[in-house]
Amino acid sequence: MDVWKGDRLNRIECALENIHEEGERALITARKNIYYLSGFMPTATSFLILEDEPVLLVSEMDRESAMAKSRVDVRTFKRIRDVRESFDLSGVLVEPATPVGLLERLGIGGDFRVMDPVSDIRMVKDREELKRMEEALRIAENSFKKLEFNGTEIEIAARLDYTMRLAGSEGVSFDTIVASSERSSIPHAVPTANTIESPVLIDWGAVREGYHSDTTRTIVEGEGEHEVLEIVLEAKRAGVKALKPGARACDVDSAVRGVIGEYGYADNFIHSTGHGVGLDVHEKPSLAAGDETVLRKGMVLTVEPGIYIPGEFGVRVEDMVVVGDGVMNRLPDALS
Amino acid sequence: MDVWKGDRLNRIECALENIHEEGERALITARKNIYYLSGFMPTATSFLILEDEPVLLVSEMDRESAMAKSRVDVRTFKRIRDVRESFDLSGVLVEPATPVGLLERLGIGGDFRVMDPVSDIRMVKDREELKRMEEALRIAENSFKKLEFNGTEIEIAARLDYTMRLAGSEGVSFDTIVASSERSSIPHAVPTANTIESPVLIDWGAVREGYHSDTTRTIVEGEGEHEVLEIVLEAKRAGVKALKPGARACDVDSAVRGVIGEYGYADNFIHSTGHGVGLDVHEKPSLAAGDETVLRKGMVLTVEPGIYIPGEFGVRVEDMVVVGDGVMNRLPDALS
Repeated sequence: MDVWKGDRLNRIECALENIHEEGERALITARKNIYYLSGFMPTATSFLILEDEPVLLVSEMDRESAMAKSRVDVRTFKRIRDVRESFDLSGVLVEPATPVGLLERLGIGGDFRVMDPVSDIRMVKDREELKRMEEALRIAENSFKKLEFNGTEIEIAARLDYTMRLAGSEGVSFDTIVASSERSSIPHAVPTANTIESPVLIDWGAVREGYHSDTTRTIVEGEGEHEVLEIVLEAKRAGVKALKPGARACDVDSAVRGVIGEYGYADNFIHSTGHGVGLDVHEKPSLAAGDETVLRKGMVLTVEPGIYIPGEFGVRVEDMVVVGDGVMNRLPDALS
Repeated sequence: MDVWKGDRLNRIECALENIHEEGERALITARKNIYYLSGFMPTATSFLILEDEPVLLVSEMDRESAMAKSRVDVRTFKRIRDVRESFDLSGVLVEPATPVGLLERLGIGGDFRVMDPVSDIRMVKDREELKRMEEALRIAENSFKKLEFNGTEIEIAARLDYTMRLAGSEGVSFDTIVASSERSSIPHAVPTANTIESPVLIDWGAVREGYHSDTTRTIVEGEGEHEVLEIVLEAKRAGVKALKPGARACDVDSAVRGVIGEYGYADNFIHSTGHGVGLDVHEKPSLAAGDETVLRKGMVLTVEPGIYIPGEFGVRVEDMVVVGDGVMNRLPDALS
């Protein structure tokens, strides 16, 4: 599977190849995997039965749009028990994200195996996917450039979201983070009604035809903040450099963590170095100690080192990188 | 459990009562259930081990906020395998939403049973929860009143979201639907760059301290649209009237469906009549044929009949109702 052409029939063939290593059919229920394989994004519980003759089962409500978009045969179902009555699901392969309750309602007691035939395929992006992510990122960055940095954290987040939406984003990649002053030391801070003070950490993204962008900048003022920012940027550069075809995900993490450790901040970098991004804002692989995925050309990953000093402040900078093609971001690294 | 006082210790006691009918401990992984029981909303994978001495396991990143908010003892974990090494999880009860892959990573092979000890408790809202939903709904309705109905579907959705956010909403309950002209016949339509034309269906909600509102209005012009709106409103009134303590969820559905059927539109009402709303925008019970839940005072449900005529137009009207206390909405039913 070195050459990945990315059309949907090819995607299904690749998934079937994975499936046939372990069984005959897989039950795909994750919405984005259904979209990735069939071209149709369900709005309600749907089932893609992935076997040699795949079938997409949707609710009556989704019928019309599924017929228009799906490249897989579409049928409708009324109740979940219709599914188990119409298909032999014994020994079926199910995705890790499948809710156990859904398996129970399908009457698949313990008669299944967990397997993920799609995530690995999704890691490498084709040209069309890269284009959508590029568009999402341009919307996100251009909207950021228009921002006036005054008012409360909530106001800045709301303006950024609104600007992205009008510029063509389908929503936000995730709840926009605007965290200022002490609150910047909380990696997943929720914006508050506090008027902003330095530093201001903004983590945001746009969505274009289902594909996400994900970027962080920290606007700093004080000398101490500047110093920490420089370390974070050095770590980020080390990460981008390490992110080459053939390297392992965990090695990129080590490279970044190494730089931060040299400056004595190892304990202040309390999350992984980055993650794949695409139809999900967090997808495989993870730039973290345990992930030995070998990086391939066309994967898109974030590199997002951060240093968090509780009670004082935090700095994080995050770029998106195409393996084999470098940083996608055009915004300056350092802002003040 | 007729008297529900709603403080968090009491919530845990009620959940334990449910659990003890089937086992000794439950593993709670659904974020909102963790929040409901402990008072802390995790930002990353977390585990609430619910037994006589409950423990909340969070990532290092969430430690600080969890310590501040949780009313359950907090510990941190680094890797998922730390959890299975520290706790006896044999025969544990797991929620229906638990991903099978997570169970596998926890080393819980087939040694679990599916049970939902929390959803039933969440159906009846206490005073504090009702207050938050009331606030969310006021924000949603007041923002709607300020809207100018011109431009594209996307522009209207973006303005509504922005206005709600500045008015104190934590985000949107779900992706706002603005569907005009023919597109109003698609129940889950995504806003487009089309300039609006009659009718305009808007389905939107605000969030306040985690609690959602959910309302739909359809602005109609033509005579045919007016006629269909009148039928939908008659159906909604029948639903609100049927929504009394002691009635079953399915009976409310029948009452609403009956009215629409009388006018010959049975096949054009292609979704359920409504759903519980609270920490999730869709929660138990469902106003649908199969749901025999007996309604109790303090439950909050939507009633949302709709008539969808493919290729022509659709009309839906949705209110929120507190069982035993009537419609929460203050916006007029019929808009033109």
